[in-house]
Amino acid sequence: MNAKNAEIVSIGTELLQGGLVDRNGLFLTEMLHGIGIEVSYRTTVGDDRRRIRDVLRQALARAAVVVVTGGLGPTADDRTRDALGDVSSRPLALHGETLRAIEERFARRGVPMPELVKRQAWVPEGFIVLQNRHGTAPGLLWEAGERLVVALPGPPREMHPLFTEQVLPVLLKRARTERRIRPRTIRVCGLREAEVEERITDLLRGDHPPVSILARPGEVHVRVTMAGTEEEVKSQLELWEARLRDRLGYAVFGVDEERLEEAVGRLLRMQGKTVAVAESCTGGLVAHRITNIPGSSDYFERGVVSYSNRAKVELLGVPLQLIEQHGAVSPEVAVAMAAAVRRLGRTDLGIGLTGIAGPGGGTEAKPVGLTYIALANVHEEEWHEHRFQFEREENKLWASQMALEMLRRYLLKTSIETVWESGQAG
Amino acid sequence: MNAKNAEIVSIGTELLQGGLVDRNGLFLTEMLHGIGIEVSYRTTVGDDRRRIRDVLRQALARAAVVVVTGGLGPTADDRTRDALGDVSSRPLALHGETLRAIEERFARRGVPMPELVKRQAWVPEGFIVLQNRHGTAPGLLWEAGERLVVALPGPPREMHPLFTEQVLPVLLKRARTERRIRPRTIRVCGLREAEVEERITDLLRGDHPPVSILARPGEVHVRVTMAGTEEEVKSQLELWEARLRDRLGYAVFGVDEERLEEAVGRLLRMQGKTVAVAESCTGGLVAHRITNIPGSSDYFERGVVSYSNRAKVELLGVPLQLIEQHGAVSPEVAVAMAAAVRRLGRTDLGIGLTGIAGPGGGTEAKPVGLTYIALANVHEEEWHEHRFQFEREENKLWASQMALEMLRRYLLKTSIETVWESGQAG
Repeated sequence: MNAKNAEIVSIGTELLQGGLVDRNGLFLTEMLHGIGIEVSYRTTVGDDRRRIRDVLRQALARAAVVVVTGGLGPTADDRTRDALGDVSSRPLALHGETLRAIEERFARRGVPMPELVKRQAWVPEGFIVLQNRHGTAPGLLWEAGERLVVALPGPPREMHPLFTEQVLPVLLKRARTERRIRPRTIRVCGLREAEVEERITDLLRGDHPPVSILARPGEVHVRVTMAGTEEEVKSQLELWEARLRDRLGYAVFGVDEERLEEAVGRLLRMQGKTVAVAESCTGGLVAHRITNIPGSSDYFERGVVSYSNRAKVELLGVPLQLIEQHGAVSPEVAVAMAAAVRRLGRTDLGIGLTGIAGPGGGTEAKPVGLTYIALANVHEEEWHEHRFQFEREENKLWASQMALEMLRRYLLKTSIETVWESGQAG
Repeated sequence: MNAKNAEIVSIGTELLQGGLVDRNGLFLTEMLHGIGIEVSYRTTVGDDRRRIRDVLRQALARAAVVVVTGGLGPTADDRTRDALGDVSSRPLALHGETLRAIEERFARRGVPMPELVKRQAWVPEGFIVLQNRHGTAPGLLWEAGERLVVALPGPPREMHPLFTEQVLPVLLKRARTERRIRPRTIRVCGLREAEVEERITDLLRGDHPPVSILARPGEVHVRVTMAGTEEEVKSQLELWEARLRDRLGYAVFGVDEERLEEAVGRLLRMQGKTVAVAESCTGGLVAHRITNIPGSSDYFERGVVSYSNRAKVELLGVPLQLIEQHGAVSPEVAVAMAAAVRRLGRTDLGIGLTGIAGPGGGTEAKPVGLTYIALANVHEEEWHEHRFQFEREENKLWASQMALEMLRRYLLKTSIETVWESGQAG
């Protein structure tokens, strides 16, 4: 048995019926992994006292830390307390302080207390009770020699604070080393997964390379994981980030949770530039993504969802003749949309998108997924053709991604030119 | 041991390091549950031959069907084949047909085959090989007396077709009963979770009520699960759906995966009505959601994201004086936006939204989350005030939800009035 390893046990029949992601297991995995405790196993079991008991016995045989969530509620199918009693061979006893806390909770809310709720105040003798400020089910903690068992209620808004405020300090205190494990994700746009792999192939060698590659819609994530003391991990991750940025160059747009629209927003803000967007096939998604970023009103002036041809003519002044001549899905119309929304919004930049999101509307010459994206500045326009081969919503997502990436590349280029020009001037 | 139960084993150290949802486990849970095989346990274990072996041994001791995903790739940390050999006491042997399939795959793509890939053609003797059309790692199937072990590669685009085309038929053939388990989700908008609970409280009694309630942003899901033969399940679910619709009335907007924007789209189409949207705080999200539905161009004419005051004036003709007098976030401006976008788009209906998404921009009088939503038809406008108390993106989501719900309620009302009028006329 690894003295530092853990097993996470998620309890609830609903988790075994499909459709429900075990968010608690995910949260606990991240938290434990983050403080350097290896999660060796995750187990999910239904609301069955005997099965829960067997799963807990086995977890205790193979892990130093066992963290259980769920099954602590007041109803008959909440069996975790009983199973913990079985495993620890401790009888359940009424915990006075917990009962009073529950009673006060109901009194404060002026609601009569159902008799059933009292079940939650029965806990195995000798277990430490973790008071729950956000609900009636207390958490339970049992130190069985070298081993630690923690049971937490299932609702995340109760479980999260209980874990971070009352369990985490105990785990950190028990941990004999300062070992931490931390990941960092380098986010890349404009290179395909295979291109990314090619550029870093030597870094992927060996049995357990600390680097892995993950393809996401319109972007690629390179994930590095490092272990060591807080300081070691920090400097190692910085070294790796520098190494990857060196290989991947401007294709890197962000780190960890940073999204493409954040990177674009930062560049717009840095350069004091503004943007307006005219969308057809993406139906507002580009504007929605840009405005997800706090403070985006500083650089986003307006958006137009010119879904009908009439809207393109009336809102943007795109000549009907141009649409009739080239079709609504054409480079000419994309360019006209970008130029018009920029001019009307009096912004520095304008984006225009037109395409066929599907599933209907495609022809042999212009199939579903065909999309034109144009970018206009005061002087000129450029455009790209894309052929996405997904379902409607993923086509929209890819188109929005490519539009944001086009904007990012443009802003990077102008910032390089500015540096160059000021260098020349100096 | 339950003769019909299953354990799902997900293999991969990355699943124990946080940040990654076990989508394969989720998919298999839904599939097995759907054909009436009870999933009793789900276990996740890292890329460690000994640990995988122990987990598989235990799974075989407590489940009739064991479905394993992951660890079948070509690299050194893919240990599932070895562990299956250990558990079955069968040596690995080179499987000629599989090797040829892999070689042909590389030849077709004109790419040289790395030596490493050949590992995937080594399988435990006596195992049935499931050819993988979408990748190089074959699936493996082993009938150990009453028990069935299936191992599938981790990438979902390989695993899903392997499971549905080659594993599902075997499982259905082995199943001795026609027992099915199926859920149905009734989706509700405009009632709070507690209000839904109150209306169906008697249906929630008993130890294992087949009904559960789940709150989601801006909506409530009531989930019913039924077991029996295909026919029994179907008629029971219909009975329950009717019962729930009876209690919840027009608050029910859809079933299972149906989204609010689909319900709205269906009503617009049925009534032959068109809509245009003017958004401020939601930044294009309402238009994006409406246009997620295939064929929405039939009823969605245009959207305007009037993020700046100037855009409100120029794109919609909202008087600057009105904005200065009441503020951009006011019922007056929401109404003016809805009326203007409807008039300009010459649509039957117009929606206007203005609010403070946050985190900045709030004042004591107009706090973050304050949102006005207006709906205009040819004759008149109505508006609602909302105070959302979430983060920026969730405020946007709620506002879009409430706008769609306002539209849905309006369309329901007019359809009732139409029925009434035609009834009167008759």
